[in-house]
Amino acid sequence: MSLPRSLAEAVAADAASPLQPFRARFALPEGVIYLDGNSLGALPEQTVARTADVVTREWGERLIRSWNEADWIGAPQRIGAKIADIVGAAPGSVIVADSTSVNLFKLIVAGMRAQPGRTEILTEPGNFPTDLHIAEGVASLLPGVTVRTVEAGEIAGAIGPQTAIVLLTHVHYKHGARHDMAALSAAARAAGALSLWDLSHSVGAVPVALDADGADMAVGCGYKYLNGGPGAPAFLYVREALQRRLDSPITGWMGHADPFAFGDGYAPAAGVSRFLAGTPSVIAMLALESGVDLFLDAPREALFARGAALFNLFVARMAMLLPELVCVTPRAAGARGSHVSFRHADAFPIMQALIERGVIGDYRAPDILRFGLTPLYVGLADVWRAVDVLAEVVGSGVWREPRFSVRGVVT
Amino acid sequence: MSLPRSLAEAVAADAASPLQPFRARFALPEGVIYLDGNSLGALPEQTVARTADVVTREWGERLIRSWNEADWIGAPQRIGAKIADIVGAAPGSVIVADSTSVNLFKLIVAGMRAQPGRTEILTEPGNFPTDLHIAEGVASLLPGVTVRTVEAGEIAGAIGPQTAIVLLTHVHYKHGARHDMAALSAAARAAGALSLWDLSHSVGAVPVALDADGADMAVGCGYKYLNGGPGAPAFLYVREALQRRLDSPITGWMGHADPFAFGDGYAPAAGVSRFLAGTPSVIAMLALESGVDLFLDAPREALFARGAALFNLFVARMAMLLPELVCVTPRAAGARGSHVSFRHADAFPIMQALIERGVIGDYRAPDILRFGLTPLYVGLADVWRAVDVLAEVVGSGVWREPRFSVRGVVT
Repeated sequence: MSLPRSLAEAVAADAASPLQPFRARFALPEGVIYLDGNSLGALPEQTVARTADVVTREWGERLIRSWNEADWIGAPQRIGAKIADIVGAAPGSVIVADSTSVNLFKLIVAGMRAQPGRTEILTEPGNFPTDLHIAEGVASLLPGVTVRTVEAGEIAGAIGPQTAIVLLTHVHYKHGARHDMAALSAAARAAGALSLWDLSHSVGAVPVALDADGADMAVGCGYKYLNGGPGAPAFLYVREALQRRLDSPITGWMGHADPFAFGDGYAPAAGVSRFLAGTPSVIAMLALESGVDLFLDAPREALFARGAALFNLFVARMAMLLPELVCVTPRAAGARGSHVSFRHADAFPIMQALIERGVIGDYRAPDILRFGLTPLYVGLADVWRAVDVLAEVVGSGVWREPRFSVRGVVT
Repeated sequence: MSLPRSLAEAVAADAASPLQPFRARFALPEGVIYLDGNSLGALPEQTVARTADVVTREWGERLIRSWNEADWIGAPQRIGAKIADIVGAAPGSVIVADSTSVNLFKLIVAGMRAQPGRTEILTEPGNFPTDLHIAEGVASLLPGVTVRTVEAGEIAGAIGPQTAIVLLTHVHYKHGARHDMAALSAAARAAGALSLWDLSHSVGAVPVALDADGADMAVGCGYKYLNGGPGAPAFLYVREALQRRLDSPITGWMGHADPFAFGDGYAPAAGVSRFLAGTPSVIAMLALESGVDLFLDAPREALFARGAALFNLFVARMAMLLPELVCVTPRAAGARGSHVSFRHADAFPIMQALIERGVIGDYRAPDILRFGLTPLYVGLADVWRAVDVLAEVVGSGVWREPRFSVRGVVT
């Protein structure tokens, strides 16, 4: 796909894209170019009506009866099967549950306990903090377990007979580099270890093929590229052949083989459902389902191709207008996710000034400007304009105004 | 409070109640008497508008900015402080997080690890299943830990030097008996053990005084008497003096002392916030807040007094019209919660036939008809009519029709 050479060409290319109709299905505010869908996905229009119906009719009118009538009870498996389609997994191998952090905990503990002779969780430094924190927490909980971090390029060689779990984030949250899932899953398996992939920055952003790539376990986030709403429930995956060997440490009633028998003793549900714990938020689950349904409507190949075009245009225009900002994201489509990051010592105030001008990206400590490229609702013309505004902000020095350095909580 | 002797007197007493204005603040369907608010609370009218605003404006228009602007990030502590008021706890000792099951797991593990010389989780048989299941899961996770169950009346005497945690549900989910929180917390403390209370069937239903009663830890449910919506987030409490001694095993980024520093190493937040794990569902949290806000508007003493009147009228009319159904709930207001349960061998089909006639209670295996009495939106006239309908159903034998015995999932 050749890149547009002018804003007019970008507008024309957007109009001709098979993704173009999807933009109108999101409730984006006027005057904003939203390049932070990798942190919080935009609101699908259909989620407004769906959530209102869940609240007023399913909850308000039908009340407790909706657990059966509206199949609230089946939501974790039903939505899980839809996400399975997106991550290349068998339908019964994914459930929606809890948060990414809690799911990481369940799977790490389960993986450690399934391999009593192995003691090591192998991961990389600079992984998304919660992944490292959760691993560290498991290590302090289970006797003899340690966390070892080695740089990304050295992971395959570092897997050894002591390694129980290779814990990696598929696409790095900050610089956006993508691990080779097939190669690293194979390396883990060859050494007798289990692979555990965090898909938070890849699900819905790039092709994922868990089954085909030989991944053992995975978790992922519902509120980024799946547009499930702020803090949407997360999901988890366990390869079919492994499901009988792994048991959740959080043995809540929703993971019981017969939750409504109300017996004292615990017996895990068959399959991945045993990783359910407590009663999930129905409103949150069904908002996520609405976002997932929208995603499933989109032509998948065209989506990822357009994501690549957005990336290439962003990088090309940055090289032209702001060559002093170093791009830290790999260029090759297969080696990265769907966000692009640049380094600047004053990334924080620059991003604040940019947001004030209606271009919303985000900042990641200590020096990263990050832009999410979400082809369901971001077009080439948006990218064109966003780089113009960024060049104007950086060039004008407006970000040096003290008010842009005031830090609140930044998510 | 003397009981009404006719439906007309019940209607008049309702009209005179200070709780009467609250009924109109719930979106209850026509033709339904809802006596299942102990399983899923009814929909507050204000939650319809609040949820729509969270979805369309806070998420849709303000997008990622709402984490700061709308203080999404502070919701666990802010809503926790409101619930603290309801359960008699210092404001900084409650947070909203995860599900009851996950919170039980975090606190049981934390309590066990804080007392390395003690090995026993003491609880009662027939406790709500998830409480027993989670305890059993912790016992299978941590070396040497055991779960011991002793009948309710024998708990105080069974606490010994081996007991780490006394795990009790304040009000029993089935028969509704209430434990003496002050006496049992004191007995646990005297023996050097920690008490952990599940408030799911007491928060919002009866007075709870965690700090005054000397409870050490507690969890509770947002979707019953707090009317937070199906599967609403749960809460947890840690007594102020204990907060430094307890650490969560699920060390997610939201429980970090500085979540947005994005460092590799974990350091727990001060206070109870360290028990946060992953990113919470904002839509679910703010729907819960809406329900809690409504609850806080109600005159507390009048609420609990009216709950007692509903109970007394229900039991009195049952004794008159259906003396063959045995009430398994203690009669004294201080010895029970705000639901009432009756035993009948055919409880399941009877409840199905009752629901068909617009009186919604629920069934708990194997033989319990359970009715939640929620004075915010249930009145004396509702109770009067409900017992009439139940008497008609039982007396007519209509429940013997085979269709009432078809079981779906029952929550």
